[in-house]
Formats: sequence, structure tokens, C-alpha cells
Amino acid sequence: MNDEPGQQGAPDVGEQPRGFAEEIGVEWIDLDPDGARARIEVSAKHLQPYGIVHGGVHAALAESLTSAATYFAVKEDGKVAIGQSNDTAFLRPVREGTIEATAVARHRGSTTWIWDVEIRDAEDRLCALCRMTIAVRELRD
Amino acid sequence: MNDEPGQQGAPDVGEQPRGFAEEIGVEWIDLDPDGARARIEVSAKHLQPYGIVHGGVHAALAESLTSAATYFAVKEDGKVAIGQSNDTAFLRPVREGTIEATAVARHRGSTTWIWDVEIRDAEDRLCALCRMTIAVRELRD
Amino acid sequence: MNDEPGQQGAPDVGEQPRGFAEEIGVEWIDLDPDGARARIEVSAKHLQPYGIVHGGVHAALAESLTSAATYFAVKEDGKVAIGQSNDTAFLRPVREGTIEATAVARHRGSTTWIWDVEIRDAEDRLCALCRMTIAVRELRD
Amino acid sequence: MNDEPGQQGAPDVGEQPRGFAEEIGVEWIDLDPDGARARIEVSAKHLQPYGIVHGGVHAALAESLTSAATYFAVKEDGKVAIGQSNDTAFLRPVREGTIEATAVARHRGSTTWIWDVEIRDAEDRLCALCRMTIAVRELRD
Repeated sequence: MNDEPGQQGAPDVGEQPRGFAEEIGVEWIDLDPDGARARIEVSAKHLQPYGIVHGGVHAALAESLTSAATYFAVKEDGKVAIGQSNDTAFLRPVREGTIEATAVARHRGSTTWIWDVEIRDAEDRLCALCRMTIAVRELRD
Repeated sequence: MNDEPGQQGAPDVGEQPRGFAEEIGVEWIDLDPDGARARIEVSAKHLQPYGIVHGGVHAALAESLTSAATYFAVKEDGKVAIGQSNDTAFLRPVREGTIEATAVARHRGSTTWIWDVEIRDAEDRLCALCRMTIAVRELRD
Repeated sequence: MNDEPGQQGAPDVGEQPRGFAEEIGVEWIDLDPDGARARIEVSAKHLQPYGIVHGGVHAALAESLTSAATYFAVKEDGKVAIGQSNDTAFLRPVREGTIEATAVARHRGSTTWIWDVEIRDAEDRLCALCRMTIAVRELRD
Repeated sequence: MNDEPGQQGAPDVGEQPRGFAEEIGVEWIDLDPDGARARIEVSAKHLQPYGIVHGGVHAALAESLTSAATYFAVKEDGKVAIGQSNDTAFLRPVREGTIEATAVARHRGSTTWIWDVEIRDAEDRLCALCRMTIAVRELRD
């Protein structure tokens, strides 16, 4: 990836979701790599034509959470975190309520982090699984 | 998937994107399974904090396109199409302009369709690859 | 999948690995869907040219285990289990000793089972992760 | 990946498949990144209990081919190629004959190559699709 994020563009610890994550209503609950969590309150804008949460919402929630949690873990080392791949499987449709993602970093390498993410509905039923691969790169000025 | 879409909820041929696809600005260009196409005009709401298009936008674009194209292909048989898995790899960051997805159905089984999707920027550079698996199920009344 | 396994071809509970699984030295330890386990004793034939276990061995171990465990769980219902997709990520190279896979069925649907598989070396370090999707179909006579 | 391949262990251009690739009967046809090809003559040892080619054989064929083709492309730069992830989808069972993989490098980055692989049977029917991600790293002495 030939991305060159500037320091102005980098999020600060404690900051709220911005950009697309904010747009779709992501809320951070916890960014600890041993059990990061975020959620979305489901509304009409998240649904696809059958009235269930669009798969892209699940994918985006998982990616927002793991990108942010990786970033906060590596930024002290002058590194940035950029999504490399997002593999999301849909198990159970969600029509309303909330979706909450819980992510565990399964691999924390010098160039790659791999996360397992579970997404559950308001009744704590497993609705989607995601494996996110995040590339960790030096911050280039 | 135990989804039970009603007939009212099913999209019609020629219809525009609705729900989350509309929310993020997806525009259909072509829904032919041999080369379906859709695009998004990139704006600030699609970006993540580094100023590049959020991976969830790529994933959602690919899923909207392939779900719709599968649906239109199988609806005459009284079937519905529901996303089963979305595996998206990010190759090149996009900062502005458009992203356009082109999708080819590689497998058109009675219970599963598998699509390969390429996403390119306004300069026709490959930016993301997606493999979408779409479950095809009987419409239950 | 248009496979039509005959009853003669179906494995029996308690049977040992056969065919390719036997060829590569898979040993069942446990086929319970809540924590199925299998292992391979690593020898020269499992390595790629750099002297590390070939990724295909990890993928085949995960697939053998989850296919068998799904099969044993659904065969009472007259169903068969066939691999649909195998997504394996390689975290740490293995040069010798054993690799042991532990698999948990995360989704047990009527048409699809989804498994998370961890593969660890003899020192219990995580070396590969696999998500297996297994199609469950009626046994056709 | 903390692999440290020695120079003795590195394959030479023109060399035949070794180790696990040789074990399962992989034959190189072409290692050009624009259309690499390899095949396996199917025999009893490649089958799973239902008499169809084991998914691990497809996965291993795709990985052998793309690892070798990446390696030959980057070795002049003093780099090595190591599998990072292998996502294989199974479309059509194969019972006999040959399986032949054709691979195209879709991304050739400084740290990652991404390949799309198609596997076809002797009648040229598409039987499996694989996306391989290969990490490219400096050869450490």
C-alpha cells in the first residue's frame, strides 16, 4: 500500500470515530487488542432491500474497530495501520436493535496484525464472523 | 440463513439502489451476471481518518452489486439472494474521484453463486478485489 | 455441488482417516463439534523448499478435521458434508515436531456449517488460523 | 513471519517441485506471473472418503504454484516469498483425470503479492477458485 498518511490525519487516543465510521454510527466501547468492542444502533439506513442489516455494515464495523485498535497499539512506535483484507461471513440476519463487534488480535506481527471479530445482535446471538488482516507500516513523513 | 423476505420488500428490475446501498451512493451501471457494474462517487463521508476510502465502502459496494445482480437473475425462479460471505482485499488506497466495481459470476449453482469483483479508481487502477458468495434460497411466503 | 456419494463411500464413526488425510498423516484426536482435534507428525514430506510446513498441509489438516466432524454430526439425519471454502492464514512457520488443529463449529445451519480452526505447534504456539465453510446436503441415492 | 531460509534451501529457476509439492505430484507448466500454470494427475491418494479430490489438494496446488512463481520473480532482488493466506472455494468435485491451476498475479507490491487462481478439470470445467496472498520479504542471512 502506498498510502502516506500525514500526522494531521492520524487519530488521537480517545478520539471518537470519524469519517465513514462516524457516518454509519460506529461507537467505540473498548479498543484493547485483547477484546476490542464497538457497536452500531441499527436504523433504516443500515438495511438492504429485504429489511436486514447490509453485509457491508458488518464488514465496515469490524474494519473500523480493528483498524482503530491496531492503530492505537502501534502508534507509539511511529507506525500506522491499514486494512489489508476483510473476510466477513454472515450467519444470521439482523433486522433491528444493535450489532456489537468483539475483536481479539490473534497475531501481532511487525508487519501484520490478524484479528478475529464476532458480531452479535441485541440478544447476544452470533450474526457475523470477520477475519481482518491489518498491515502495519512505518509512518512516512 | 433464516431470513424471510416478503414480496413487498423485494426490489424490482430497474429499480435504483435502496437502503444502505443508496445511503453510501451506489449507482448501478449494469446488472448482467457476465459483467455487472456499479460505482460510487467518493466524498468525505466515505473516508477513514487517513483520508482514504474506508475498506467497508469497497466491501459494501461489491456486496450491493453482486447481491442485486444475483437477485435479478434468480427472481424469475421464485428465489432470493442473500450474502453468505464477503472476502475483500485492499490493494491501493483511493483518496478521491470514483470507485467502480465490475463483477463476474464465476459459479451459478442452485444454492450458491460465487462472484469475482474488481474495484478500480477513476484512473482505472485496480484498488480492491472481492470474492462474494451469495446464498440462493427459495422465497418462503 | 453435484457430488453424489454412495453409502459405501461414507466413513463410519470411529474410522481412521482415509485417502488424502491418511496420505498426509492426519490422526483424529476428537471429532466433537465443540472442540474437534487432529494432528500431524511433521516429516520431510510435509515441507516446502525453505524447510517449513507447506501451507497446503495446514489447509488440508483443517479441512480433513472439520469435514469429518461435520459429517459425523449430520450423518444420523441422512446428510453429507462437503467442503465449500477453506480460508487459511499462516502466522508462524513450523519446521518440525507436530501440528495440532483444534476446531470449533461456530455456525451449525441446515445447509452450512462454519468452523474456526487453530493450528498450533508442539510448543503450543499459534501457527495458522482457518475458517472452513462446509456445505451440508441431503444424501442422494 | 520469522522464517529464515538459507540459500541452500532456496529453489533454482527451472527446478522441479520438491517437498510437499513433489509429494502430491505437482508439475510446473509455466511460472510466468501473467499466467502461471501447474497440474496434478489425480490418483487415489488425492481423494477424500467420498471419492472426490480433497480440498487440501486444490489448496496445496494453488499455493505451490503461486509461491514458486512469486519466488522466481523476486529472487533477483534478494527476496523470498512466503504464503500469508490461502482462500480456496470449491465449486465442482473432481473424481479423476487431472486438475490444472492457472494463476494471475493481480497485485505485485513490495511486501505482498496477490494471486487469483483457477483450477479446472480435464474437461476444462472450473472446479475451484483460490486467492493467494504471498508475503515478500528480504532474505535474511
